[in-house]
Amino acid sequence: MPSDMSIEHQRILLNHGSGGKMTHELIENLFIRNFNNESLKARSDAAILQIADKFFAFTTDSYVIDPLFFPGGDIGKLAVCGTVNDLSVSGAVPLYMSASFIIEEGFPMELLERIVSSMASEAKYAGVDIVTGDTKVVDKGKCDKLFINTAGIGLVVKGYENIHKGLDIQPGDKIIVNGYIGDHESSIISARNLLPLKSEIISDCCSLNHVIQSILKNNLSIKFMRDATRGGLGTVLNEVVDHRLFGIEINENNIPVREQVKAICEILGFDPLYMANEGKFVLIVDPKDSDQVIRIINEANIDRMASLIGEITSESPGMVLLNTGIGGKRIIDMPVGEQLPRIC
Amino acid sequence: MPSDMSIEHQRILLNHGSGGKMTHELIENLFIRNFNNESLKARSDAAILQIADKFFAFTTDSYVIDPLFFPGGDIGKLAVCGTVNDLSVSGAVPLYMSASFIIEEGFPMELLERIVSSMASEAKYAGVDIVTGDTKVVDKGKCDKLFINTAGIGLVVKGYENIHKGLDIQPGDKIIVNGYIGDHESSIISARNLLPLKSEIISDCCSLNHVIQSILKNNLSIKFMRDATRGGLGTVLNEVVDHRLFGIEINENNIPVREQVKAICEILGFDPLYMANEGKFVLIVDPKDSDQVIRIINEANIDRMASLIGEITSESPGMVLLNTGIGGKRIIDMPVGEQLPRIC
Repeated sequence: MPSDMSIEHQRILLNHGSGGKMTHELIENLFIRNFNNESLKARSDAAILQIADKFFAFTTDSYVIDPLFFPGGDIGKLAVCGTVNDLSVSGAVPLYMSASFIIEEGFPMELLERIVSSMASEAKYAGVDIVTGDTKVVDKGKCDKLFINTAGIGLVVKGYENIHKGLDIQPGDKIIVNGYIGDHESSIISARNLLPLKSEIISDCCSLNHVIQSILKNNLSIKFMRDATRGGLGTVLNEVVDHRLFGIEINENNIPVREQVKAICEILGFDPLYMANEGKFVLIVDPKDSDQVIRIINEANIDRMASLIGEITSESPGMVLLNTGIGGKRIIDMPVGEQLPRIC
Repeated sequence: MPSDMSIEHQRILLNHGSGGKMTHELIENLFIRNFNNESLKARSDAAILQIADKFFAFTTDSYVIDPLFFPGGDIGKLAVCGTVNDLSVSGAVPLYMSASFIIEEGFPMELLERIVSSMASEAKYAGVDIVTGDTKVVDKGKCDKLFINTAGIGLVVKGYENIHKGLDIQPGDKIIVNGYIGDHESSIISARNLLPLKSEIISDCCSLNHVIQSILKNNLSIKFMRDATRGGLGTVLNEVVDHRLFGIEINENNIPVREQVKAICEILGFDPLYMANEGKFVLIVDPKDSDQVIRIINEANIDRMASLIGEITSESPGMVLLNTGIGGKRIIDMPVGEQLPRIC
């Protein structure tokens, strides 16, 4: 869309909700410009707020996924994990959540019961209380079955008040991802029956707070964390280098991707780097601590696939470069839109 | 619906989102049963949470109103006021808010800009920062134009940590409402062109935090506050007496209702007591302080219509009785459903 197109003719497109370039533009040009405050300008997953002498993380997300149930989870589990993870990667211990439901008239009570019970059990696992909520019902045809919003509050672990800004990141720092990427989006593709798959792929949807707390309590030099959801790993890495004086170099061979996910990407023309995840996060750590971080994650994770995928470089600031498996180099740009809408 | 109807055949109805009896049943039987914690069991508009030595209020609401613009406001202003007011009546100073948007593909950018700018200006007036958010876009036809969710955090004013429970309410306490009731629902009726009206009715949609702070700082004996939104004044009064050993008696002649609103109710068969408001709240106060509370509200309010509408009685516990204008008595029950869906 030409930038001089007057606002009278502009409309919201699916890509504005993709988590990619158009979402970032909308946040910049509409929300940050109007709401205009320092927390929002930090552009992190959770706002970090000082109240009295404590630092809190505060975050929200709406979930509009289709279908509501997928291998490995459902919209309820996702809504809890998403908020727990946004708080956790901001260096906070998640404490309390809200849950707000927009329900289409005629929605089966039995499914709502399953979804609410799934939220309750994930909240219990994560150790957060769902303490407040709201229920709205709209006429049949005015929403697609069920949308859930969650917001969450966490208490930032002492010493990690600025981790969401990533100000200490410097060339040489290592980039770690905690396991296989692309599983969540693949599970949605499988649940939508978009491809005839031999075996179903299970979403990685899970609460990351326990593993993140294990890392933080070891006093390691963690410079930054972010979960790679909408827009995938490629988008997060681009957010890290955006307007910074360093770049990122990652190695394709070191990025854990299941064969099945590779096959799906091959057929649909997708890139695993942009596939949505719901239990994956990126850590940027001082090189001296990278081995220990990987060890801690792998002790907590049955897959044991935490991997050092690359590092911060002083060359090509603001850019993410991929050393491909066959020896080439490729720029990983911020995606404009989504490969598949309504996956999280 | 018969209570023995098995869950397999039950479906969500519009009335489950009305704020009335069916909403309360859903909250009880589904949400409180599954999420099961003390904050939720308090059944207040905001959860009151102790973190370290501070008490916080935390609340959320989704807004699905139709139409998006109405005389006196729009969905954006409403989304800010609603959360500010839920925090304020819980005895808290609102500090921070989240804003989450679910937008239908094709929604005009110009309208979104107007709505976001309206949120920004109401937030500025109320003195809260919108610090975090989320944007989802769904395919055309999968939601009705725009839904907004807001969540908010406030710091409870010292001494008011338990006001949301209303534990100190006792017979003889006075019931005050801060002005004309029914204006918001009437403005929506007018915006929907449901009736040919000579002059438009302006919604009472406004942030109540400043007037509530003025009351709280005077050290008066305030026993309880709640804003009368969905379900109106009648619903709030029923919530006050629910499972309690006292009742409420109110006087129709003392309840401020505009002539125009009375006329609309007459024609549509609505009851002003169940009409939704977005800037009205009920206070229960010790009799010695009722005059001063009314004076403080009227100093802040151009209408100067704050009124003492009734009192807590030891007779008919659990019930709300109305002394009608013509000398009769009528039970004001919790409404089963809504007079009009999607008004807030």
